[in-house]
Amino acid sequence: MAADLPLSLSDTIVALSTPPGAGAIALVRLSGPQAITITDEVFAGKRLAEQPGHTLHYGTLRDGAQILDEVVVSLYRGPNSYTREDVVEISTHGSDYIVRQVLALLLRHGARLAEAGEFTKRAFLHGALDLAQAEAVADLIAADSALSHQVALRQMRGGFSRELRELRSQLVHFAALLELELDFGEEDVEFADRTGLVVLLQEVQALVRRLLRSFELGNVIKNGVTTVIAGRPNAGKSTLLNALLNEDRAIVSEVAGTTRDLIEDEVSIEGIRFRFVDTAGLRDTTDVVEALGVERTRQRVQQAALVVYLFDLSTTSPAELHAEIEALNLPAGVGVLAVGNKLDLASEAQAAPFHSRPDTLLLAAGQGIGIEELRAALLARVRLNGLDQTGASTIVTNLRHARSLEQADRHLDAVLVGLSTGGGTELLAADLRHALGALGQITGEISSDDLLTSIFTQFCIGK
Amino acid sequence: MAADLPLSLSDTIVALSTPPGAGAIALVRLSGPQAITITDEVFAGKRLAEQPGHTLHYGTLRDGAQILDEVVVSLYRGPNSYTREDVVEISTHGSDYIVRQVLALLLRHGARLAEAGEFTKRAFLHGALDLAQAEAVADLIAADSALSHQVALRQMRGGFSRELRELRSQLVHFAALLELELDFGEEDVEFADRTGLVVLLQEVQALVRRLLRSFELGNVIKNGVTTVIAGRPNAGKSTLLNALLNEDRAIVSEVAGTTRDLIEDEVSIEGIRFRFVDTAGLRDTTDVVEALGVERTRQRVQQAALVVYLFDLSTTSPAELHAEIEALNLPAGVGVLAVGNKLDLASEAQAAPFHSRPDTLLLAAGQGIGIEELRAALLARVRLNGLDQTGASTIVTNLRHARSLEQADRHLDAVLVGLSTGGGTELLAADLRHALGALGQITGEISSDDLLTSIFTQFCIGK
Repeated sequence: MAADLPLSLSDTIVALSTPPGAGAIALVRLSGPQAITITDEVFAGKRLAEQPGHTLHYGTLRDGAQILDEVVVSLYRGPNSYTREDVVEISTHGSDYIVRQVLALLLRHGARLAEAGEFTKRAFLHGALDLAQAEAVADLIAADSALSHQVALRQMRGGFSRELRELRSQLVHFAALLELELDFGEEDVEFADRTGLVVLLQEVQALVRRLLRSFELGNVIKNGVTTVIAGRPNAGKSTLLNALLNEDRAIVSEVAGTTRDLIEDEVSIEGIRFRFVDTAGLRDTTDVVEALGVERTRQRVQQAALVVYLFDLSTTSPAELHAEIEALNLPAGVGVLAVGNKLDLASEAQAAPFHSRPDTLLLAAGQGIGIEELRAALLARVRLNGLDQTGASTIVTNLRHARSLEQADRHLDAVLVGLSTGGGTELLAADLRHALGALGQITGEISSDDLLTSIFTQFCIGK
Repeated sequence: MAADLPLSLSDTIVALSTPPGAGAIALVRLSGPQAITITDEVFAGKRLAEQPGHTLHYGTLRDGAQILDEVVVSLYRGPNSYTREDVVEISTHGSDYIVRQVLALLLRHGARLAEAGEFTKRAFLHGALDLAQAEAVADLIAADSALSHQVALRQMRGGFSRELRELRSQLVHFAALLELELDFGEEDVEFADRTGLVVLLQEVQALVRRLLRSFELGNVIKNGVTTVIAGRPNAGKSTLLNALLNEDRAIVSEVAGTTRDLIEDEVSIEGIRFRFVDTAGLRDTTDVVEALGVERTRQRVQQAALVVYLFDLSTTSPAELHAEIEALNLPAGVGVLAVGNKLDLASEAQAAPFHSRPDTLLLAAGQGIGIEELRAALLARVRLNGLDQTGASTIVTNLRHARSLEQADRHLDAVLVGLSTGGGTELLAADLRHALGALGQITGEISSDDLLTSIFTQFCIGK
């Protein structure tokens, strides 16, 4: 990723770093070799070039004789800054007009507008962050629940990178020995202990696979769980949605077919974001609008992560329920939870057949009975892998990382197969190199050229 | 104003100081005696209590063992801060989630949420700003044109306050002499030179009236000029609006009566905001919706600051134009500019009668001919008072200030009448005190008790 950055680090970049709009304060940030010089040209107060880093300076910004604003300047001297370059943050009054004028002024004095994420890219290019950490900065800003916040923060602080470095460092040693064997190829020596390698590879692969499995949860933490509430008309789907959201989101009536549009809203259950979709009841209908709604429901069910199939306990038999869920024709991987509603209206005889069934929950949405149990059941469905969510283990949330881990896993497989079938050192070394490369891609610290360099400098045998 | 603030300055207040929403950085600001202590309780990095002011400190915010974010803390020690109190600004990642957590954490540690404007109120209470300056801070943030920005900035930096102080200091001397005469009442002395006082009062009143006149422009600068475009159907009003806005804002067609809703949009002409209102053409109509539109046009015209009466040169005679403008029945104070459109379609004979008329402008809106001239004419209408807008003179933008100036003007009148009719010293002194009080209200620096105190300490004669 570092390779295709169209950046010149000799530029000084500038951008508004706080959200746009009116507020007390706006921050305009400069980074680069000219950050201090450019600011000095427009700042009347002290000469910043003579000030130490990590200091604050009050003064005015001037465009020629005209005062633009009274400001406070935060001065950071590289490498003790976010980007590792000289950084100046100008704290102006929070008016869009002033921000526009200040940006225009700084551009005229030689700064250029920063691209999206360019400050963090520079931090990466200067080695302040690795790629996984840099990616976590964006995740952290987007985080909107306790769990996504904690996962992003841990990744930004290097937790995930550390785990990857450990995996890689274990492999690098063996990779270097294999490369060494290749150098002495004609002499047919084996520096690398094959049995030890198999054990190690299996351990590493187990870790890679644990990380890969964590992606399922990581994806849920980052993107939420789309949960479609489906069922016959008048099963009480909108009432259930309102109960889950704790507000009157959907229009509820006793008329079957009240809901036509898909109504979606989110709620966070213990830090996991569930996106609930209330749908039109599934039935054949002659009402054109309702028919379109039913069609949309069928489509949406196919794309769900989870389907809550709601049925009316007082009017549905176990056989009917089974048939209706079958008829949804859910793709593999979409979980379904059958939920019997109107427990308050159903007779004991009606409810009894469902009581002992796993995967079936009984409640009375209108009365708020059983809602907590449903929340717990939904959570349990998401925590499929039994991962420790309290913070100890690393959770992969990034698709790119998951893809790289999959690649590493495949290459590790190939190495293991090669070892068990007595494959040649050259192939083993190549596969191992690929596995290392895939892991290195995640943090961006390594390309396959770098791998070779690192191995041969580490093991330098004077050849 | 200072008197009715329900504030305890012993509290430490906290608020988000940057606009809400996702961004790179959010600033959470604390001010008050515990600002540093409270931050130290949750900040892991350095001990802030031991750091000098105007310094930046990197570290983490912690809620117990849990890390909330990596932050930079800006430390200001009172009185070298905006509020003159100890101030801490915490620069977090710009996520609403993080900001909520950080605010909640600081509240738990003893800060309280700041009220709107409370940091600036504290700056005023601690004497960092006077009232007029404090009011200008809000104007500065709301400023959205070069002119409103410059006027607010000058007022915030104390330009207006300085001018008021000069006015007052000239009067205070005479007021003190008058009070002194009252003290020596029985002895019938005249310390104050009555002729000199008249000259001075006339000078001061002239300045007060100049400031009052500037309010007309000040109000325009701050709030913009509502300019209604009226005229017969199909005169080209929507075309003119689009030309003035430089975009296709209103739907244009050759069908008379195309516009029914009022279409409003703003454009800034040399720093002055014009709010243009395109209206339904004025005609009797049987179309119910159009009739409602015509009714709205008539209402809106009554509330306008300026009316552009657009007519079709090729179909309108000077007599008709005159009659139509008369029929608008405009209230006094609403300016009207007659604008002849479709210059490209009109014959020379049709256009000729309008050519030499002042207050009448000819153009071809569809071709963009004459638009610049219209802009200049609109601007000229606003600059009624011929005030120097380039920056030298003070412009009053605040209604409260204008009201206080009006009061001062009235009391100065009373003093002058008293002097010319040989009124008693007691009445003169009282009227002058009221004039001083009215001027002092603007900056908040004085109430009438303060006036007496200031006069008798200044002239202390040991009595």
